[in-house]
Parts: sequence; structure tokens; C-alpha cells
Amino acid sequence: MATIQNPYLLFLGDAADQLAAKTANGVKVWRPEWCVGQVRLPGCKADLGLDDLTIAQGAERGAKTVILGVANRGGFIPDSWIVELVKALDLGMDIASGLHTKITQIPALVDAAERNGRQLFDVRHPTRDFAIANGKPRAGKRLLTVGTDVSVGKMFTTLAVEKEMRARGLNADFRATGQTGIFIAGSGASIDAVIADFISGCVEWLAPENTPDHWDLIEGQGSLYNVSYSGVTLGLIHGSQADALVMCHEIGRPHLRGLPDYPVPEIPAAMETILHMARMVNRDVKFVGVSLNTSNVSADEATAFKAKTAAQTGLPVVDPLKDGVAPIVDRLMAG
Amino acid sequence: MATIQNPYLLFLGDAADQLAAKTANGVKVWRPEWCVGQVRLPGCKADLGLDDLTIAQGAERGAKTVILGVANRGGFIPDSWIVELVKALDLGMDIASGLHTKITQIPALVDAAERNGRQLFDVRHPTRDFAIANGKPRAGKRLLTVGTDVSVGKMFTTLAVEKEMRARGLNADFRATGQTGIFIAGSGASIDAVIADFISGCVEWLAPENTPDHWDLIEGQGSLYNVSYSGVTLGLIHGSQADALVMCHEIGRPHLRGLPDYPVPEIPAAMETILHMARMVNRDVKFVGVSLNTSNVSADEATAFKAKTAAQTGLPVVDPLKDGVAPIVDRLMAG
Repeated sequence: MATIQNPYLLFLGDAADQLAAKTANGVKVWRPEWCVGQVRLPGCKADLGLDDLTIAQGAERGAKTVILGVANRGGFIPDSWIVELVKALDLGMDIASGLHTKITQIPALVDAAERNGRQLFDVRHPTRDFAIANGKPRAGKRLLTVGTDVSVGKMFTTLAVEKEMRARGLNADFRATGQTGIFIAGSGASIDAVIADFISGCVEWLAPENTPDHWDLIEGQGSLYNVSYSGVTLGLIHGSQADALVMCHEIGRPHLRGLPDYPVPEIPAAMETILHMARMVNRDVKFVGVSLNTSNVSADEATAFKAKTAAQTGLPVVDPLKDGVAPIVDRLMAG
Repeated sequence: MATIQNPYLLFLGDAADQLAAKTANGVKVWRPEWCVGQVRLPGCKADLGLDDLTIAQGAERGAKTVILGVANRGGFIPDSWIVELVKALDLGMDIASGLHTKITQIPALVDAAERNGRQLFDVRHPTRDFAIANGKPRAGKRLLTVGTDVSVGKMFTTLAVEKEMRARGLNADFRATGQTGIFIAGSGASIDAVIADFISGCVEWLAPENTPDHWDLIEGQGSLYNVSYSGVTLGLIHGSQADALVMCHEIGRPHLRGLPDYPVPEIPAAMETILHMARMVNRDVKFVGVSLNTSNVSADEATAFKAKTAAQTGLPVVDPLKDGVAPIVDRLMAG
């Protein structure tokens, strides 16, 4: 997919609540310098704390792309949004959407994009073909975030590692595999929407050969233990040929998300399983840290869990939101 | 997908060689009673040993569906084929294609199908949506074939188990996950063409809840070790919630297919890896046999390999082509 041009104007529409604008919020948190403002229509209950702008004002501030990083109610895009989005295209901006509904199948938007020579991006839907993975060793280094379950902080952790590495002047790029990550990176592939035969091939495309000092930091998805999505996760592990892995976990989750009958695995057992599968493509792969989401437990419980995990794994253990990821990058660089 | 109606007329077109008609040959081997004959156009180098018929003669013999189980040269369907296929539709037959090229996108065929109220099946391309897998335990029993690599005899083994079980009056159904299998079963899903998020959900649809005495025999695909397709394999393992597994292996393969840098795993090691992943969805899953393709080695080597494998695994070990699979079904029924 072509690169999504920044700066961005974040379109929140009539989002029902703050959670509906989760994707846009991720963009604002990780790329504030790319965000010229937000567009909120009547009834919008989300607020990212950015300047409220009209489409025209966003264009005046230099926005190149309008980002639809919001859930649409009822799974369709209302006419009230389309009117605004056509204005954006007429003012020379592209549109990038993270909705399931494809904007590339809405005639009014397709027409306006053609008329103005602008681009429409449906980031949840890969628009290119991928090759079958060839599994060949490739130059450059890769780190992959993995987890005990879905939604345990893999994207956050990966972006935190990128930020820390770049602050140290290291050569590192975040590689996005989900919609929020794609807006933040400006490119990537929604790996869960790829045809099954091409999962690992897609990852080989996303994180290709590079210079020996370069690190691709690949956003993980799912979990080998979450049986709804485990095929995606194994394709990511086998396609990335990771040199380094970071284990992500949310403390206190009662069961795997969406699977009430399935317990969350213990971190050491999950690490062993993941390493076994990852070694099939890179004998030298190793874990360099554990990243915890501690938001469900008290400070004391978090501290005790961290100490226990550090003792079990011998790795740096952090809550990236509270502690940062410097100890993980230290371990990574120690080789 | 709707059921493909039999009897079949096998269309070989101008197949370049016998291998190009591999799919049609599988149908003829496993469902000879469904095959009224073969259609060969000028230049056809394949021969299934069936009666050579014209399209009209096939219709006279009662064929309900023309099967395109042949590779098309250059990836497109020549006009000489389309003329014949239109005739078939005009004579009241459906068409089912195993080609990558979609017959549902060829206007002449779509028109003729509509005109005659007939159906076109592109069995490599799932036409329905699947749900995300829910992982819930379900009634009925399931057997899944797995392997050290791709193309080691999983479909053959699964069909041989179905044949043996049905000969014993047992309640068993082959569940197809690839194009040849779909023609043989009359239904199924090309699992490698499903969107990545729905691999295991597709298998839950394919092998749903059933009566306690019923066995679904699920055709495996790929291998956890073949990194090009491993995501598909894990989705199959997690979606099938297998009670029984049969390990398939080809003796003498120099490396994993398509991956010259990757050795073929040893059978016991591969079984351990597969069991570990399969236990996540069914604690009681176990292997009930090993199925070997011995065609690359001498009879002595095959015998020695079988003895070694039986000693390593404690399981019945057969070449299904030469020995049948009765010992595996014995073990399965012994529970």
C-alpha cells in the first residue's frame, strides 16, 4: 500500500463515546505532531483534546489526509459524514479509513477522489497481493511483540520500543499490522484480513531485508493460545524471523478474550511455546523483556507480579505506560 | 457452499500432461461411481481411463455437474473450453471449477448459467462468510490428519479412513478443506483461501456439532513446520478440536517443500509439537496412527522405517496405499 501522507485531520464524526474514537486517540497519542485538529459533528461524544476544526479549517492548517479512526454506528457510513468527506477531497485531501465498511465502495467518495486526483485508503483491507513466504534468512534485525492473549498491549509496547530506540539514535522502524498502527506508521498491512495462505508472506513483505544495524519492530497480533486468531499469530511468528521477542501480558484477565472456557496461560509456559515455534525460523531468537498492562491491579499487586515474573524469566519486566521500556532496549542492545 | 450435485462429467480440456489432471484423477479414484466419463479436447495429454464423451453424451448419461479438475495453461480459460462449458450449461448441467481463475467472473458462463438456472462453483474461493471461532466444546467426534510437511498424503489418508470406517458400518464423514477433496465430498471449504481471522471459525463451520457416535474426518493442510502455510495448519488444529490425530509423512523428502533451508522434522518431535497445540482445545486429544508415503524408497527401507516409527510412537504405522488403514481404525475404535 502507498504511504498515507501526513499531517492528519482526525475525523470523529458523531462518535457515540470516547471508546468509539480509540483508533484516532492512538494516532493522537503516538503522532501528536502529525495531528492538526479534530472534526466533530453534532452529537459527537468523543474528544481527543485537539483543536475543533471544520474540514476547511483542517485544509488551511495543511492537513493532507483525513483519518476515519472511529467506529461507525450500525456498520454504515451516514450521509452526514459523506458530505464532509467529499468536501475534504474537493479541498485536496486524501481519506484513510479504519472502518470495516469500505470507503472505496462508496460512489460519492470514489467520484470525488477521481475528480480531484486524490486517494482513498481502506487500511483494514489489503489491496495488494502477497507472495507465499519463502522463509529465507534475510539481513537486518527484527523484534516481534507476542502475548498471552489479544489486546494486551503489543502495539503500545512496540511503539514504546521504537520511541526509546530512536531517542538513543538507533535505526529502528515500527511495522504496523493493524489499523491503528497503520495510521501511526503511515503504512503497513492489516494482517488479519490477508488470505490465509499469505499470512507469513505478508510479514516478509512488511519487514524485508535491511541493513545489518536496522531493527524492524513488528506489531504482534493475537496469541498462539487464543484459538480464534492463533493462525494469524503463527504466521506472524514464522514470517518475521524475529531475532528478539517481547512478551506482553495483562495482569488479572479472568480468561482469554472472547473464550470464557479458556484460561490465560502462565507467562513462562507461553514463552516456551512461542520460542519453540519461533526457533523453526531463527535458531538464535530470544526474549528480551516482558511488558505488562497493570491497569487492573493495585500498585502493590503490580510490584509483586513484576518481581515474580522477573524471577521466573530472568528478563526486564516493565509496565510500558508507567515505567517506559528502557530496560528492555538495554537488554536488546546488550545482544 | 451448496452441495455439488453428482454424477460428474470430468472435463480435462487440453491438459498438457497427466499431472495437470491430478484433481480430476483424485475424483475418479475416490468416487468412480460418480464419474460418467471424461471430456478431452484436441491436444489433451491426460487420460483417466474413463469413457471419452462429448458434453452432449455426458448429459445423456445423466451427469449433473461438469468438473474442471485440471490445470489451465497460462492461468486463463481458453475460448475452446468456454464454448464447451456453455454447451454444458445449456444442457442443464452445473459447472464446478478448481481453477484459480474464477469461472464466476467469465461473462459468457455467468450469462449461460443465469439463462438456464444453473450454478457455477469456484471451489478454491470461499463464497460465504465465516464467524470468528468460539472454541466451545461441541458434541460428536473429530479426527484430523496432520503432517511433517505439505503434500504428504493427508487427503488420501483421511479418505482411506472414511472408506474403512464406512465399510465397518461406522458413522463417518470426510470433511474437505482443499479443491480435490471438495469435489470428492461434494462440499467443503478451501481453507487456505479464507481470510486469516476466520481460519479456525471456518473449521468450526465445516465440522459442526453432531451426534455422539459420529466422526468427522477432517482433511488436514500444510504443517506447523512449513512456515509458508503454518498459520493455516494451526487454525485447522484449533478449529477442529480433534479427538484423534493421524500423523502423515513422506519418507525420503530432502527438505520441506518449497523451503530448501528447512529440514523435515522427525516424526516424534513433530507429534509432540502438534499435540501441545492441539491440547489447547481438547485435553484428551491423542494420536491414533502414522500414515507413510513410501513411494520414494525401497520395500526394505520402507519396512525398516515403519518398524522404527512404530517403536518410537507405539502406534500403528501404515502406507495407506499399500497396507490400507485398518490398524489405524482399530486403534481409533479401541478409544
